[in-house]
Amino acid sequence: MGDLKLVKKFEVTDGFWGRYEKLVKDVVLPYQENALNDRIEGAEKSHCIENFRMAAEKLRTGQCDGEFYGMVFQDSDVAKWLEGAAYSLAQNPDPELEKRCDEIIELIGIAQHEDGYLNTYFTVKEPYKRWTNLHEAHELYCAGHMIEAAVAYAECTGKSRLLEIMCGMADHIYRHFIEEGAEGYPGHPEIELALMRLFRCTKEEKYKELALHFINVRGVDSEYYKKEKGRNSWSVWGSNADDKEYNQCMEPVRMQKKAVGHAVRAVYLYTGMADAAMETGDTTLTDACKTLWNNITQSRMYVTGAIGSAYEGEAFTKDYHLPNDTAYAETCAAIGLIFFANKMLYLERDRKYVDEMERALYNCVLAGMQLDGTRFFYVNPLEALPGISGEAQTHKHALPVRPKWFACACCPPNVARLLSSVAEYAWHLLPGKLFSNLFIGGTLDLGDVFGGKITLETAYPYDNKITYRFAPEGETMSVPLAIRIPAWSVDTVICLNGKPVSYEMEESGYAFLNRDFSASDVLTVELSMPVRKVYTCNKVSANTGKAAIQRGPLIYCAEGVDNADDVLSLSLKKDGAVTVSEFLPDKLFGIQEIYAEGYRETVNDALYSYEAPAEEECRITLIPYYAWGNRGLNQMRVWMPEKK
Amino acid sequence: MGDLKLVKKFEVTDGFWGRYEKLVKDVVLPYQENALNDRIEGAEKSHCIENFRMAAEKLRTGQCDGEFYGMVFQDSDVAKWLEGAAYSLAQNPDPELEKRCDEIIELIGIAQHEDGYLNTYFTVKEPYKRWTNLHEAHELYCAGHMIEAAVAYAECTGKSRLLEIMCGMADHIYRHFIEEGAEGYPGHPEIELALMRLFRCTKEEKYKELALHFINVRGVDSEYYKKEKGRNSWSVWGSNADDKEYNQCMEPVRMQKKAVGHAVRAVYLYTGMADAAMETGDTTLTDACKTLWNNITQSRMYVTGAIGSAYEGEAFTKDYHLPNDTAYAETCAAIGLIFFANKMLYLERDRKYVDEMERALYNCVLAGMQLDGTRFFYVNPLEALPGISGEAQTHKHALPVRPKWFACACCPPNVARLLSSVAEYAWHLLPGKLFSNLFIGGTLDLGDVFGGKITLETAYPYDNKITYRFAPEGETMSVPLAIRIPAWSVDTVICLNGKPVSYEMEESGYAFLNRDFSASDVLTVELSMPVRKVYTCNKVSANTGKAAIQRGPLIYCAEGVDNADDVLSLSLKKDGAVTVSEFLPDKLFGIQEIYAEGYRETVNDALYSYEAPAEEECRITLIPYYAWGNRGLNQMRVWMPEKK
Repeated sequence: MGDLKLVKKFEVTDGFWGRYEKLVKDVVLPYQENALNDRIEGAEKSHCIENFRMAAEKLRTGQCDGEFYGMVFQDSDVAKWLEGAAYSLAQNPDPELEKRCDEIIELIGIAQHEDGYLNTYFTVKEPYKRWTNLHEAHELYCAGHMIEAAVAYAECTGKSRLLEIMCGMADHIYRHFIEEGAEGYPGHPEIELALMRLFRCTKEEKYKELALHFINVRGVDSEYYKKEKGRNSWSVWGSNADDKEYNQCMEPVRMQKKAVGHAVRAVYLYTGMADAAMETGDTTLTDACKTLWNNITQSRMYVTGAIGSAYEGEAFTKDYHLPNDTAYAETCAAIGLIFFANKMLYLERDRKYVDEMERALYNCVLAGMQLDGTRFFYVNPLEALPGISGEAQTHKHALPVRPKWFACACCPPNVARLLSSVAEYAWHLLPGKLFSNLFIGGTLDLGDVFGGKITLETAYPYDNKITYRFAPEGETMSVPLAIRIPAWSVDTVICLNGKPVSYEMEESGYAFLNRDFSASDVLTVELSMPVRKVYTCNKVSANTGKAAIQRGPLIYCAEGVDNADDVLSLSLKKDGAVTVSEFLPDKLFGIQEIYAEGYRETVNDALYSYEAPAEEECRITLIPYYAWGNRGLNQMRVWMPEKK
Repeated sequence: MGDLKLVKKFEVTDGFWGRYEKLVKDVVLPYQENALNDRIEGAEKSHCIENFRMAAEKLRTGQCDGEFYGMVFQDSDVAKWLEGAAYSLAQNPDPELEKRCDEIIELIGIAQHEDGYLNTYFTVKEPYKRWTNLHEAHELYCAGHMIEAAVAYAECTGKSRLLEIMCGMADHIYRHFIEEGAEGYPGHPEIELALMRLFRCTKEEKYKELALHFINVRGVDSEYYKKEKGRNSWSVWGSNADDKEYNQCMEPVRMQKKAVGHAVRAVYLYTGMADAAMETGDTTLTDACKTLWNNITQSRMYVTGAIGSAYEGEAFTKDYHLPNDTAYAETCAAIGLIFFANKMLYLERDRKYVDEMERALYNCVLAGMQLDGTRFFYVNPLEALPGISGEAQTHKHALPVRPKWFACACCPPNVARLLSSVAEYAWHLLPGKLFSNLFIGGTLDLGDVFGGKITLETAYPYDNKITYRFAPEGETMSVPLAIRIPAWSVDTVICLNGKPVSYEMEESGYAFLNRDFSASDVLTVELSMPVRKVYTCNKVSANTGKAAIQRGPLIYCAEGVDNADDVLSLSLKKDGAVTVSEFLPDKLFGIQEIYAEGYRETVNDALYSYEAPAEEECRITLIPYYAWGNRGLNQMRVWMPEKK
C-alpha cells in the first residue's frame, strides 16, 4: 500500500476537493493537453507532443523536419500530464481521454530507441551526447517523471504499455550506470523516488538497487560535475559546476544537515531518500531525512508550506531567511514537500508530517492555480505589491497575477497530478492500523481488509466536523482507526452516536479507536477550529512584530480589493475580536471570510515624518491565501503588524 | 564661488569633523596611497599606480612589461585619491605628501599621449580601441575624475600641472565629440559635472559646451549603445545594451521623471545637469532636476540618505521599494546625492537640499568607513543579520563587517575626497547672502567680502548649540547671514549676546540676519534636538508598523552587542521615554547613546506558534548608525516594530 493505489479505492465526494477533482478533469487536464499540443493562443509555446512526434519520425525514418523546441526537460511535462490523467481516470472513467492517453503512449513507444533509451531532446537534437551532461541535461529527471506516469497509468487503468516502455528505459539506465559502471548522479533528483515506485509496482529488485545507487553515490565525489564539465564541449545553460549546494552534492547525502540549493531538487531527493530508508530500514538514511525535515520545517519554511526563499537558484538560503515579497516559494517545491512528508510518515508515525503536508497543500499548492484552473503561479509570494511585484529587478519572478503558461512549465502539470491524486494522501494503511490523515469526504472501499466501506463526510476545511460512517459487509466491521488530530485543534471532541467515546490519544498525535463498527454507527470528530493568530519565531526578520491569521489548515491573507485598496496601512489589534463569516458560496468559489479588528493608518504624503500616522479602528477582511490573486491586480499581505 | 574653493577659506577646528579630517590625513590617505601602490597585505590588489607606470613606459619606449590589472576604470581611484589629497593639503600643508602627489602627477603626464588622450587601460591593454565602447569602457568617467582632481589640486595647491594635463585631455575629447562629430554619450556619467568644474576654474567656454553636449545628446538616440555594440567585436563585461534605464538613456534627460538605473550614475548625471542648469539658466533642465530630486527624496531614499534598493544593477528600483537588509545603498551613491543636493541649492535656495545632504553625510557616508579609517563598506544596509547578511545568495553584497579594500574600489577614495572637502558644503556664498548650511566648527576667512572672519563653534551633531563669533578687521563687519534651520528643529532660539534677536524666518527654511557684527558679538542658535521617532510612509512595505530613532541629523540603530545579542526581539514602546546619554568620549570615538523604553520578546523555539511571544519591558540601547559594525559581527537594525 501507499503508492497511490488508494486513488482507486477512495471515491472522492468531497465538496471542496470534489470541485478541484472536477476542475482537473474538466478544465486543467484539457487546458494542459491543449497547451502540450500548442493549441492555446497567447500562451507560451510548449511543443511537447511535437517533440515526441519528431523523435518518433526520426527513429522511423532516420530524419525529421523541424527542430526540438523547449527546455531540455520538456518531455517531463507530458509525463506529469499523463500521470495526472491517470489519477483522473481512476476516479472518473473517460474513454475519450483514455484513448488520447493511449495514443500519446503509443507515440512515446515509437520515440523509444531499441536499447530502451527515451528522451526527445537527445534523440532529436543531440543524438551523440547521451549521458554526457548529468549536471544539466535532465535525462534522468525526465525518465523519472515518465516512470511515475507509467506506474500511475498501470495502477489506475490496468494498462501496462507505458510501464513496459519505462521498464525498458530503466533497464537501459541500469546497464549504463550499474553494469557498465558509468560515473555520476542526476543534476535534478527525481529518478530515485520514481525507481522506488517502479520497484514497488514491479517487485523488480534491480530498480531499488538503482535508486539506492543514485542516492549512495551522490556527493561522494562532490567534484563530479566539475569533472564532467571538464570533459564536455557542450553545456545547456553554462551552469556553475562549483555550486555544489545548488545540486545537493557538497557531501554524501547521509552527512547533509541543512536543506540547501534548488528547493525542488532538494525535496525530490529527500523523498527518494525517505522512501529508500523505509524499504531498506537504513537508519543512517532515516536520520538524515529527519534532520533535513526538521531543518526545513523549523527554520526554512513559509507559513503557507512554501519553501525556497530566493529567486537566485530557486533555492533555500539560510535559516530564518523568509522574505515575503521576494519569496521564491515555487509551487513544485511545495508539492515536493508533500511528497517528502508522505514518505516521512512511513518512517515515523507522527501527525507533524501530515500537519505540514496539509499546510503546503491547502495554502501554497492551491494558490499555485487560479480558482478556475486556467492560470498558474510558479512563484507564491506572501506579499504582493503592485508596482513592485513582477516589476522591480528584485521582484521579476514574483508576479502579482497568474500568467497562462510558462516557457518552463513544470508547475501546472505538477499541480494537476497532485490535485487528482489527493485521495492518496488522505489515508494510509499500515499493518494493524488505518490512518485517517487528510479530511476529505468520500468512500473508502477496503472490503478486502476490513470487510466493509468507510465513508467520511465533512465540509472541511471550512467546517470543523468530520463524520465517519461504516458499511460493513456483515453485521460489523473491525477497524483499527487512527485519526490525525491536527496540532492546532486543542480541544477535540470525538463521539460515537452522539456520545463521547473513549479512545487512546497517542503521542504521535493520532486518536486511536480499535473497535467494531456497525452500519448505524456514526463517529464524529469535532476539531476545535477557532481563528488563530500565528506568530513567527523572531529570528525571522521579515515577520517581527507581525501576526498572520489561520483557521483550521487555512492561512488567510488580506487583499486590497476587500480593504479599500490598501493593506499596507492595516495592522491587527492585539487581542482584538476575529470573526468568521457564513460560508459564502458565491465568493471565490465558496469561502468563509474572516474579519479581524484592527487599525488603519492614514497614509502620509511624506516618505519620512516625525509624527506617528493617525490611526482609526477598522475591520480587516481576510480571505484564504489559496484564493488570492483571483480578482485582478491588487495588494496582498499574509503577515500584518500587530498592535495593542 | 561654490567650487570647493571654500576648502581654502574655511579652517576646520570642529571636534567631530576635525577628527575625520585628521583621520583622512593620517590614516585614510596614507592607507589608500599604500593600497594604490599594492603595499597592503591581505587586501585586494589595486595596481593603480603600476598601471600608470606601465602606460608611461609604453609611451616612452613603445612597450612595457606586465599587464594592465584591475577594472577598466582603475585610473579613477588615483584621481579620487589625488582630489582627496588636494583638499587635505589645503587644510593641512604637508610638503612630503605634496611631493608624492607631484610625482604621481608627473607620472600621469608621461602616461598622456601627445594628442592629449589619457587612460592606462587603453594605452596598455587596448591601444586601438579608444572611444569604441562608451557604454562600458569608462574613458569619459576616468577623464572626469582626473579633471576633478586637476581642478581641486590647482585650487588647493596653486599648482597647475595636472590642470594642464587634463585640459589637454578635455581638448582631445572636445575635438573627438564636437569637432569630429563622434556619436554617443558616456555609459557612466561624471564627465559632465567635471567639465562644469573645469569650465568654472579655467573660464574656457568650450568645456561648458562639451558638458552640455553630453547632457543634451543623452537618450536622444536611446539606441546608441545597441548600435555601438553591433559595431563592436569587444566587450568589457558583456553588458546588456538594451537596459536603457540602467544607463539613464531611455529618453532625453529633460523628459526623465523617475530616478532609475545604476544609482551612482544617476546622481552623477543629475549633478552635472543641475550645475549646467545653474550656469545656463535652462529652466527645462532645472525642472527635470527638481522632478528627479523629488522622486528620489520622496520615494526612493533610505532614512540614512542611502539610495539604490537593489544589488541587481546597483540600482534604483521602484517607488517605495526600500528593503533594509538587501539594500544596495552604495556609499558612492550617497556621496553623489550630496553632490546633487549641493548643486540643487544653487538652483533653488531651500533648506530641504541641505537637510538631505546632511542626512546622507552624517549617516550613510560616514557609515561607509570604519571609525578608524581602515575599512570600508561599499553597501550600507539598514539591517544586518549575521548568518544571512553576506552569506545568503540574496545578501552576498550586504556584508555585516567592513572589508579592507575592494577589487572595485570606488567607494574608499570617494569617502576620502568628500570628508576632506566637507568644509565646502558648510557654507555657500551668493551675491548678497552668506549661507551657513552645515554646522561645522571652524573659521571662515572672507575678509575680502565682509571685512572680517566668522568663527563657528559647536559640538554638533551631539550638541544643539551653534555659536557664531566675529572678527571684523575694522569696528564691525556687515554680514547678510542666512542660517539653515533644519526641518527637524521645530523650536529654534536665536540670540545675540544672550538675548533673543529679531530675524526673518524665510520660507526657504533659513533664518536671515542682515546686520553689523562687532568683535564682542556672540550669536547663538539653539536648535531643538529632542530624540524623535521617525515613521515611514506606509507605502513602504519593509517599514510598516516600525519606527526609527533620530536625534538632530543622526539616525540611530540598535546593535546586538549593546542589546544582549538580539535586536530582532526588540520593539519600541509607543510614547515610551527616550533618553540621551552624556557624551561618551571613549565609546566609538565619542558618541551619545540613546536609551528607549521598549519590549523584549522571548524567542520561541518553534518557527510558528499560536501564542504571542511573552514580552517584558526593557531598555533598548541605540548608537548612531554611522558607528555600526565597528565591534565585530553582530545584528543591527534601524527600523524596529513599535507597540503601544
